[in-house]
Parts: sequence; C-alpha cells; structure tokens
Amino acid sequence: MGDNNFNLPPGFRFYPTDEELVVHFLHRKADLLPCHPDVIPDLDLYPIDPWDLDGKAMVEGKKWYFYSRRTKARISESGYWQPIGVEEPIYSSCGKKVGMKKYCAFYIGDPSEGGARTNWIMQEYRLLSSNSTNKSSRKKSSKIDYSKWVVCQVYNEDDDDNSKELSCLDEVLLSMDDDLDEISWHN
Amino acid sequence: MGDNNFNLPPGFRFYPTDEELVVHFLHRKADLLPCHPDVIPDLDLYPIDPWDLDGKAMVEGKKWYFYSRRTKARISESGYWQPIGVEEPIYSSCGKKVGMKKYCAFYIGDPSEGGARTNWIMQEYRLLSSNSTNKSSRKKSSKIDYSKWVVCQVYNEDDDDNSKELSCLDEVLLSMDDDLDEISWHN
Repeated sequence: MGDNNFNLPPGFRFYPTDEELVVHFLHRKADLLPCHPDVIPDLDLYPIDPWDLDGKAMVEGKKWYFYSRRTKARISESGYWQPIGVEEPIYSSCGKKVGMKKYCAFYIGDPSEGGARTNWIMQEYRLLSSNSTNKSSRKKSSKIDYSKWVVCQVYNEDDDDNSKELSCLDEVLLSMDDDLDEISWHN
Repeated sequence: MGDNNFNLPPGFRFYPTDEELVVHFLHRKADLLPCHPDVIPDLDLYPIDPWDLDGKAMVEGKKWYFYSRRTKARISESGYWQPIGVEEPIYSSCGKKVGMKKYCAFYIGDPSEGGARTNWIMQEYRLLSSNSTNKSSRKKSSKIDYSKWVVCQVYNEDDDDNSKELSCLDEVLLSMDDDLDEISWHN
C-alpha cells in the first residue's frame, strides 16, 4: 500500500506525464525498486467499483492512481472494464518506445449479457515485455516479468477537462443551429 | 529571489489554484512571512519582455510565475502590458472574496502610439486592500500596504490548453462550413 499521508506544500500537485507513469513509477514497481515518495498503492487485481476508489487509490484532483496486476477480465461488484479504441504507444522524451496505454470504459452489468456504459474511464499503462532501463535490470530481466504490472489512472469524463471542451463544442453547434435556421428562413 | 533549485520527485509539479496564489503566496509576501519552499522570485517592477522570463521567473510547464510591485504602467524594452477585460474576484473555498485577478496582453511598441498585440498573456493577482488573515496580521495591518504586491502568471496563448480548444472549435467551424457549402449546393 502506498503512503497516502505525504504532505505537499500549497500549489504543488501530483500531475504525472504518461512517460513518468511508465518510466518512473511502473518500471520501478516491476524492477522491485523503492519509490520515494511511495504514493501509488497496489490494489492487486482491483475488483473495486470506480466510485469506491476514494481512500483506496491515490487521488489528485478528480483522478485516481493505483498499481494493479495485469488481467484480461477486470470485473468488479457492479460491472466490468472494457477496452475502447486501440492501444497507444508511450514514448520517452528521447523518442524511445517505453510502454503502451489502453483506454477502458466501465460498464454496469454482466460482461456476458452486455452492460450499460458509464462515464468512468481507465487509462491502463503497461511496460513492453522487453523493457529494461539499466544494466542491473537487464541482469535481472530473466527473473522479472515486465508484463505482470500495470499502473492505472481512473477518472469520470464528467469531471474531466474534455467535458469543458465538449460543452464549448456544444455551444458552437447550438449557435450554428441558429445560423442554419436563419438560412432556411432566408430561403 | 526565490529558490529555483528545489527538486521535485517525478510526477509532482507546481500547479497552484487562483486561491493558493492569493491566499498562500501573495498574502505571505505582503505579510513579510517566509514561504517554504520559496519558489516564486520577486522581479520588482518587472521591466522584462515575456520571452526573456526564463531563468528569471519560476517556470512550470509553459507558465512563468513571479512577484512584482503593483504599477499602472508596465513597460518593458520591447513593449507594454495592457489590461484586457474586467477584473475577476477570487474566492476562497469557504466563499470569502480574497483577491482580484486581471488579464493583460503584451503589445509590441510604444503605448503612446499603440502597439501590436501578441499572444503573451499575464494574469495579475492582487489582494484586497482590506486583506488580513489572522489576528497578528490585523495588528500589523496599519503598517502593511496590501496593495503594494502582485503575483503574476505569464504564458503564451499558443502554448495554452485554450489553443487546443480553439483548434477544436476551428475544426467544427470548418466542418460546418462544408455543411453550409452543401446547403448552398442543394439549393
């Protein structure tokens, strides 16, 4: 379990980039190296509904962070996570491919019957199976399974900046609707 | 001058809210109280062009932070800052008005002749003249001029999230243009 009791000075926040999540946090986890501060907890197979993450995962703003073991079927009490879209590669600042990011949406219901999609989104980051950052990890790589761990970021689309963009789009579309009405009226 | 040599662990950043900038940083500055970590430098009257802030102001991402003395005419070597829009009140989380935020744009040229507006924006935060947070500061308030200091955040609109929103708007407008063309064509 991570140390959730760290105190940041005012103005400072946990806003990791994709690269930091993969290279620093996930790689150190897989390499069994300590992380200071140890802020991201390990929720194992994570059978927790997204709205129950408070107090279990690390929270910053409206985003929850945790490590989990990689699994194909991620099922919780109320529903399941289903991948949406394709996996995206994560590159380091020097252009090296260091990991992959998968988006999943949370569905309420049973996966066999098909559920109702919610606005809860998970970004699941994994390492490449060939990942190794330094000499010591290359030595250990035969023993370490880099595909075992993922680091997850969960948020509700309604709380995300994207929703602001959407409402801004809505506004334009609405105003364009008026224009279209006007065009019809003029004709 | 602030301490720009502080080292944050990976994933941690300086992303202050408006309230934190006013209540924590600006208030402590005006109250002559120490700030730990002392990250925001004091650039006095700030006669520096915005593109020359690197190495002088505190930088996080593409935003620069510094204290400055309040002044009506903020003129630098290449141009001047001019207020745009009206001042916005800043509220604390408990709903108390704690300060004001003013937006300025940077113009290249001479203020008397009128300059050319750039995409450089400054958000200038000031305290209310009646500001006092505790008993000790109320005692000192007769000696402290709360209107003397401002804390500034400078960024280039091209680097800001807003620009993404704009390009997203542009995209919709462009696609709507196509629709309008189609309408004309159908008629």
